Amino acid sequence: MIEKKVRAYTNIALIKYWGKRNEEVILPTSSSLSLTLDAFYTETAVSLATGAEKDIFYLNNTLQSVAATEKVSRFLNLFREATGIQTPSVIRSTNYVPTSAGLASSASGMAALAGAANLAYGLNLDPKELSKYARRGSGSATRSIYGGFVEWQMGTSADDSYAVPIDDANWDIGMVVIVVNSQRKAISSRIGMKNTVETSPFYAGWLESTAKDLVEIKEAIRTRDFQKVGEITESNGMKMHGTMLGANPPLSYWEPNSIMAMQMVRQLRNEGIPCYFTMDAGPNVKVLCRLSDSDKIKTKLAEIFDPEQLIIAGPGQALQVIAE
Amino acid sequence: MIEKKVRAYTNIALIKYWGKRNEEVILPTSSSLSLTLDAFYTETAVSLATGAEKDIFYLNNTLQSVAATEKVSRFLNLFREATGIQTPSVIRSTNYVPTSAGLASSASGMAALAGAANLAYGLNLDPKELSKYARRGSGSATRSIYGGFVEWQMGTSADDSYAVPIDDANWDIGMVVIVVNSQRKAISSRIGMKNTVETSPFYAGWLESTAKDLVEIKEAIRTRDFQKVGEITESNGMKMHGTMLGANPPLSYWEPNSIMAMQMVRQLRNEGIPCYFTMDAGPNVKVLCRLSDSDKIKTKLAEIFDPEQLIIAGPGQALQVIAE
Repeated sequence: MIEKKVRAYTNIALIKYWGKRNEEVILPTSSSLSLTLDAFYTETAVSLATGAEKDIFYLNNTLQSVAATEKVSRFLNLFREATGIQTPSVIRSTNYVPTSAGLASSASGMAALAGAANLAYGLNLDPKELSKYARRGSGSATRSIYGGFVEWQMGTSADDSYAVPIDDANWDIGMVVIVVNSQRKAISSRIGMKNTVETSPFYAGWLESTAKDLVEIKEAIRTRDFQKVGEITESNGMKMHGTMLGANPPLSYWEPNSIMAMQMVRQLRNEGIPCYFTMDAGPNVKVLCRLSDSDKIKTKLAEIFDPEQLIIAGPGQALQVIAE
Repeated sequence: MIEKKVRAYTNIALIKYWGKRNEEVILPTSSSLSLTLDAFYTETAVSLATGAEKDIFYLNNTLQSVAATEKVSRFLNLFREATGIQTPSVIRSTNYVPTSAGLASSASGMAALAGAANLAYGLNLDPKELSKYARRGSGSATRSIYGGFVEWQMGTSADDSYAVPIDDANWDIGMVVIVVNSQRKAISSRIGMKNTVETSPFYAGWLESTAKDLVEIKEAIRTRDFQKVGEITESNGMKMHGTMLGANPPLSYWEPNSIMAMQMVRQLRNEGIPCYFTMDAGPNVKVLCRLSDSDKIKTKLAEIFDPEQLIIAGPGQALQVIAE
């Protein structure tokens, strides 16, 4: 039997996911929308290991700790429960990122793991069902099942909360990722969003407003109105960070160079290059731009940032199976 | 006749004023609370100039432009209308700030002008009425009529929107002001608050939450609970900045060194020195602290900032009349 691995690309949300209404099965408080990126991905193979007592997990060719392995095992249990096949597995996963960018997100990791487990345990899930499984590993992983622009529909229950493809992004669009800091963040997005949901007086306003942003950005994507897509992206991301400043105690992932990066994006825009920033639960800044402008933007940003901190990414593909 | 001048100290809001419900007579959307500071003040003398055609305005011994003078004249018109005395005046105003800190706020300026005009036009206003006049010049000037902790009560109309003294702050409390940038800000607070009120989905949440903060900080001031005062101050300030990130387009006054300053305050706190930051419509960071800790805090901040950027301030007094 030829062993197969699954590749999943990461994605960056333009309309943010920031809050769970159910932590157990991971249901979000709002729908979100992302762009899958080709520059960052994870490849994962899962092989049943008859006779093994427990799962064995290698990440980047390194055997992982009990804690890290247990997280993977809990996720694989979903597949074992669904099939009745209790066999443990060997999991080999590799994160492909241009540098140690700290961007090896759980999105591509959990999507690739879901895809590989689907093969190993023979569930034959279609992408929609696979997206629901990926969701249980990490909310943003739902969206990495597809390429291009992808919406994660919040749904009404665990059964209908999954991602759907919106547009293949086969037009002049991409991102320049500015790696401000590749260290692990002090406050995980899981904790950060939980505190925000529970304490921010802005949360109701956020939910109402992000729902509107989603409708508008989908229309802007449909008409390929880049400026509109960019403006909504920048506004939605800043709103997410605004809800965090409303949390008690206040929460901010920004670092001095995050501000520097955002100032440079505004400056580039003033110079006539259309580009817009967004930030997630960390200090890095992602610049949405015309892919054809990305070299120019990178050159400008390199006045301040080390070229190794600047990664150009085009639209990424859907999750795919690769023969090893 | 001995000419008299009036000195008014500036104030920094712990519970922020961020939005007008009436721009004409300056009525705020919420009540606010500040600490008057001794390190920054304005001294102003107004003398009737019989025979002059227009007001003549000197700021820091420099004759001011027509535009700047007209702003002062519009304010003095309130006094002329109230008394029927139409005589123009010579206005001599001096801002006392330790460096060109960009902190010569309109608060002390308009409070001192109100006080000096009150003398010149013989209105004999009591502090409460003077606070209402000052409000017409600049909202935050209402609070600079008094020393220590001062509340600007939003009121129900132009007649009952004025400041009241809360506590003389005659206990171990003060601020270290970090002058991150002394340049004039790109977006005035007038425009910034207007855009926020009109476009931020967080504004209703802000109003509800700042009203609660005000009740709580007054109780904390009453019991001299410094930690509580600090925590509410930091949280309220960050919420104000959160409402701005919710504006469309998003608004932020932060600079890279603002973040650096806030990070250092958190670090000082982790090291056991109780201190809390707040920010206004600009990049400067104000550190609320025990006045007895202020030298220690300044020394620590001087590892990053130039000593000239660091100004220690204790509680300031009420507006006062000084013989020239």
